[in-house]
Amino acid sequence: MLMKILITSGGTTEAIDSVRGITNHSTGRLGKIIAETFLNQGHEVTLVTTKHAVKPESHSQLSLRIISSVANLHSALEELVPQHDVLIHAMAVSDYTPVYMTDLDELKNTSDIAQLLEKTNTESKISSASDYQVLFLKKTPKLISQVKVWHPKIKLVGFKLLVDVSKEELVSVARESLRKNKADFILANDLSQITTDRHQAWLVGQDSIQEAQTKDSIAKLIYKEVTKHD
Amino acid sequence: MLMKILITSGGTTEAIDSVRGITNHSTGRLGKIIAETFLNQGHEVTLVTTKHAVKPESHSQLSLRIISSVANLHSALEELVPQHDVLIHAMAVSDYTPVYMTDLDELKNTSDIAQLLEKTNTESKISSASDYQVLFLKKTPKLISQVKVWHPKIKLVGFKLLVDVSKEELVSVARESLRKNKADFILANDLSQITTDRHQAWLVGQDSIQEAQTKDSIAKLIYKEVTKHD
Repeated sequence: MLMKILITSGGTTEAIDSVRGITNHSTGRLGKIIAETFLNQGHEVTLVTTKHAVKPESHSQLSLRIISSVANLHSALEELVPQHDVLIHAMAVSDYTPVYMTDLDELKNTSDIAQLLEKTNTESKISSASDYQVLFLKKTPKLISQVKVWHPKIKLVGFKLLVDVSKEELVSVARESLRKNKADFILANDLSQITTDRHQAWLVGQDSIQEAQTKDSIAKLIYKEVTKHD
Repeated sequence: MLMKILITSGGTTEAIDSVRGITNHSTGRLGKIIAETFLNQGHEVTLVTTKHAVKPESHSQLSLRIISSVANLHSALEELVPQHDVLIHAMAVSDYTPVYMTDLDELKNTSDIAQLLEKTNTESKISSASDYQVLFLKKTPKLISQVKVWHPKIKLVGFKLLVDVSKEELVSVARESLRKNKADFILANDLSQITTDRHQAWLVGQDSIQEAQTKDSIAKLIYKEVTKHD
């Protein structure tokens, strides 16, 4: 059965001011390979990605949507999730967004720090006069937890990237994410085990763990599970 | 007379941890056009630029050096400045770099904030458990002020980008930068006056101000001044 596949790739950027932003690094290579795997089998793919991410070549069954921030991603997913059968959410999404940037003097002269969390910068480009700056950030909404609310029947593959942890910790964090986000699978991977040719990963399901060691085999594994009859 | 021209373009990124960084946005388009202008006239060009910046096509007289952080740029310029006749420093250089990221609890429980400036994060990927985070940043060294120390005879063209200020303020800030950095020219421009087709700028010298309104005319103006006999 041909399906409508929604894939996210790349990394979001949260603006600090008009010239600076906090970026989550992600090349988009894995999302590109996953998109190509589904396109090659005749499925329709919508790829939500970011400016600097690598992208598949244009294809009659491929739609691209370029976004930058978590807020952009929120709008895009809220609109697109109900129109698709599967979401493969490989994008590196910023977990914090800037609230207010100030210098140490203002911080030292503030008795209640909570007040600073209510402030916003009015300058377009924050001054670089002080030797130090303090940037307050707040957590972004966890969009993955909304996916099954927007479309309960969608098949959801989430991603979890940790750095330099044991396989046990990685799998346990993936299981926790499965449960919290009602995901069908979590692709768990560790930055310290990703090189140009190799990409160690585990596809964690409710009662299964499957291993892959390259981006190609990750894409094939996800393809197999997503297209499997229930 | 053919010269050795050093050009910087793009924007630096300062790492927060292994997956996040603070980036100064810059497409590198102006640096590319300036490089091409000099290459077309037979000059030798070294372009120090960043991964995502647009680059000129390869050329027998062009060397590329890809850097990421201010520390990378520092090493590159210290090595390359003495080997060149001219530096055109169009890169958007991060003015702050992350020192330490923590949650509000640690901030509230610290009597002397200066202590936090001595700390560093030991985690590879900073946890995203707290609702808020505080990121302390310190000023990066102003590399442009070292250029004439490394090579007193180099011709130095600095750049100053402000956002939504008057022409008077822009020119006054450029004059201050000329003086402080012993630059020969400062290209002063305002982000709010840059669109796809138009790039309003002033090339400010000791006793001169020349206006340009496109990236091409900025490149030609810089070319004319840099190759003029003294």
